[in-house]
Amino acid sequence: MYYPAPIERLIENLSKLPGIGRKTATRLAFYLLNTKESYVSELSNSLIDIKEKIKLCSTCFNITDVDPCPICRDEKRNSATVCVVEESSHMMVIESANPGYYRYHILHGVINPIEGIGPDEVRIKELRDRVQREGIREIIIATNPNIEGNTTAHYIAETLQDLDLKITRIASGIPIGGDIVYIDPLTIKSSLDNRRNL
Amino acid sequence: MYYPAPIERLIENLSKLPGIGRKTATRLAFYLLNTKESYVSELSNSLIDIKEKIKLCSTCFNITDVDPCPICRDEKRNSATVCVVEESSHMMVIESANPGYYRYHILHGVINPIEGIGPDEVRIKELRDRVQREGIREIIIATNPNIEGNTTAHYIAETLQDLDLKITRIASGIPIGGDIVYIDPLTIKSSLDNRRNL
Repeated sequence: MYYPAPIERLIENLSKLPGIGRKTATRLAFYLLNTKESYVSELSNSLIDIKEKIKLCSTCFNITDVDPCPICRDEKRNSATVCVVEESSHMMVIESANPGYYRYHILHGVINPIEGIGPDEVRIKELRDRVQREGIREIIIATNPNIEGNTTAHYIAETLQDLDLKITRIASGIPIGGDIVYIDPLTIKSSLDNRRNL
Repeated sequence: MYYPAPIERLIENLSKLPGIGRKTATRLAFYLLNTKESYVSELSNSLIDIKEKIKLCSTCFNITDVDPCPICRDEKRNSATVCVVEESSHMMVIESANPGYYRYHILHGVINPIEGIGPDEVRIKELRDRVQREGIREIIIATNPNIEGNTTAHYIAETLQDLDLKITRIASGIPIGGDIVYIDPLTIKSSLDNRRNL
């Protein structure tokens, strides 16, 4: 193929993005070649910007461009309850389902012995410090309901059991609007085990 | 949602790319946030680079970072035959199927009266000049076999008919490995009309 070097370089860089293969990268590169220069330089600058301006909040470890982050600054939120999540993106999903209510703590990962990620690699110690410092009354552990997420949840519960604190875990079950026919047996079992009174 | 402004800006810019919606853009933005800074700045620079370094070849109007482009410089190619294509990307597909053989002429568009693109908006005049200047003996019109591509092909043939020149059109028919059951009637008709002796 006779791609000029700068295009080849852009295609290579774009195809390193997740879910973008060489064909899509090529299509994007040609789109970018033919589109307005102002947009391309804006895109280029916004890439540099996230690396320069985005930091972690010193309280909850959420990604933010101001410290503390807007959620930690928000005095209308319930200050006694902290929702513990794996990643900032998970926090944002919960926040959009339940806006303006919880405070959060972002672990930045889950315990995963196979990949060599132990409890010290995720921000569990910082969670403990925060619980003691801020007088938190409840933590809701909203890690994913898979092996790593469950392991992490149990580890957190154990680590914090000496503190006077309610520790809860988000429910697993059949998604709203889901069809029982298509749900896996483990989820069905969980939805039966966690049945509630009507 | 509580996306910090720089992330929001990157998501907005990414979701302007073709085939990338807000959800994919968000996923990409978070990937970029968590990946190595060196890659992000490399991607950012390569975006700027294509706008700064890529020009059109003054002979064939192919995109290139040197003028004339490597294909026009390549003296091993058949200098009497020029393959006329709509876009540089089409040229590259033909080149990869048939490497090192043809010279090309890139129209940068097709005649499309509905969108207000007339013969003067695509590089047909330049093709005529080139045929006369370079003593070209055959042009193969490889525009797409749709209404605009066919219109453009016929217009080119008419425009150049006073020159002593063989003008050909690429064949339409059933793709190699295709199944007749799934081919549309117009393609079937074309493959019958253009049947050849065995």
